[in-house]
Amino acid sequence: VSRYVLLIGFMSYCLMGAKVFQTLETDIQEKLKNSFLDAETALMKNYVNITPEELEIFLQMLALSIKHGIIPVRTGVVYFSWSFRNSFSFVASTLSTIGYGSIAPRTPMGQIFCVFYALLGIPLTIIFLKAVSNAILRPLSGFEKYLQNMGMEERRIRIYTILFFLVTGLSLFILLPPLLFMHTEGWTYREGLYFAFISLSTIGFGDYVIGINPSQNYSHIYMAIIMLWCAFGLTWIALLFDLFAKTLEKTKTKLTCHKLCQTERKSSGKSSYIWPFFA
Amino acid sequence: VSRYVLLIGFMSYCLMGAKVFQTLETDIQEKLKNSFLDAETALMKNYVNITPEELEIFLQMLALSIKHGIIPVRTGVVYFSWSFRNSFSFVASTLSTIGYGSIAPRTPMGQIFCVFYALLGIPLTIIFLKAVSNAILRPLSGFEKYLQNMGMEERRIRIYTILFFLVTGLSLFILLPPLLFMHTEGWTYREGLYFAFISLSTIGFGDYVIGINPSQNYSHIYMAIIMLWCAFGLTWIALLFDLFAKTLEKTKTKLTCHKLCQTERKSSGKSSYIWPFFA
Ligand SMILES: [K+]
Ligand SMILES: [K+]
Repeated sequence: VSRYVLLIGFMSYCLMGAKVFQTLETDIQEKLKNSFLDAETALMKNYVNITPEELEIFLQMLALSIKHGIIPVRTGVVYFSWSFRNSFSFVASTLSTIGYGSIAPRTPMGQIFCVFYALLGIPLTIIFLKAVSNAILRPLSGFEKYLQNMGMEERRIRIYTILFFLVTGLSLFILLPPLLFMHTEGWTYREGLYFAFISLSTIGFGDYVIGINPSQNYSHIYMAIIMLWCAFGLTWIALLFDLFAKTLEKTKTKLTCHKLCQTERKSSGKSSYIWPFFA
Repeated sequence: VSRYVLLIGFMSYCLMGAKVFQTLETDIQEKLKNSFLDAETALMKNYVNITPEELEIFLQMLALSIKHGIIPVRTGVVYFSWSFRNSFSFVASTLSTIGYGSIAPRTPMGQIFCVFYALLGIPLTIIFLKAVSNAILRPLSGFEKYLQNMGMEERRIRIYTILFFLVTGLSLFILLPPLLFMHTEGWTYREGLYFAFISLSTIGFGDYVIGINPSQNYSHIYMAIIMLWCAFGLTWIALLFDLFAKTLEKTKTKLTCHKLCQTERKSSGKSSYIWPFFA
């Protein structure tokens, strides 16, 4: 029961935020779009008499517009508008701390709201992803128990469990999704792989973003798959980084106190080596 | 000793990465810049005969250039080039998972290297920031002990310690830095505050980025302050989010098992409430 309360509460928080950002930001983008279109019209009218300086001013303005999520196309359509769906994507990318930045609040109110919204929302997301990490670690410890019942020695069990974690996660979250992106976003496999890693590691440069290809009509099923991929993939990669960090620290400790701690190492820190992270 | 090894190792990893990215990415940006300048020259030459379609194609190209970190200014200078300093900033923003994306690898080799570099680098950064978190928590437990020696009751000590953590961190990392940014970047106080929070929470939209104001000559002292601010601020805000998440979870548990766990609550989970995070 508690898990469903968490899920519903978290989703409500996201939907509420998406609505607020949409309300706060739509006007300014409309205004920017219009002023850009006016400038473009003026440029087209007077281009016989335009000086390099005037062109430059126009280009600077264009650069600003693009930063604000406006891409000029023939019909003057806003490329990445604060529609509810885009606003929701923005909220999801903010709370997960991916922060693509393909769209970001521009109004003073929107920016201030964003700070307080994330201040509460990121801890909520941490709790939510902790619940997801349990859902990942449970089958893993099931796998561990299965091997134990087969009478395998402890060291090998550990290696097989880690391998199982790496192989399934790597295929599900990093190696297979690019095939889907190739189809829906028109990227190469490498670009999809790069996007998958940059997103799930929460770096989120925003040089590749899904769901904004204007020639593509995204289905609801696709969006649902993406959300599941994000929730589980983010958690998996956080667990992976934690595993790497623990292993590296272990190695560092081994290197720095090669002989000193030899007896100490034998006695302690054997069973609590890998799982659980997120203690 | 171990701490200095860590610091030097981490810095070497960053510097090495900065050099590699610079080598991999400089050429393509040069090429893009030149093709943009050619297009601009062609546009300026023939602008009497230009059609709206041709202008549009030019604008699309401009949009692409801006995405690749090229901003057209009078002299055709690359705004955000892969200079060593910018490349180092890029590496720092990637490994901290802030990922502003004001500059990102465009070449296939650069993108692939980026994935593997971050895969090892992010765990290294986690280890590095754990060391920083010890440096933050040590004075805090010193403060706690000071209050204990004064004979204060445990509940009040906890409240005062959290308040001390909040007030000093909030002033040092969130409320004071915007004053510096107002001076160096020409932002308003609100913009600086927004930037500080969006950066330290590792969201990093990239709508505001420091160190790229072309009219400003950044001193080495400024860059050193920024690096210290980042290292300690990132850690402080991670501790803050963890504190919030733990408090929220505690509240959730209280709400869901209001009477059931009353006896349980009394007996356990009292001392291990706040510190240490990052167990
Ligand atoms: K980020
Ligand atoms: K980002």
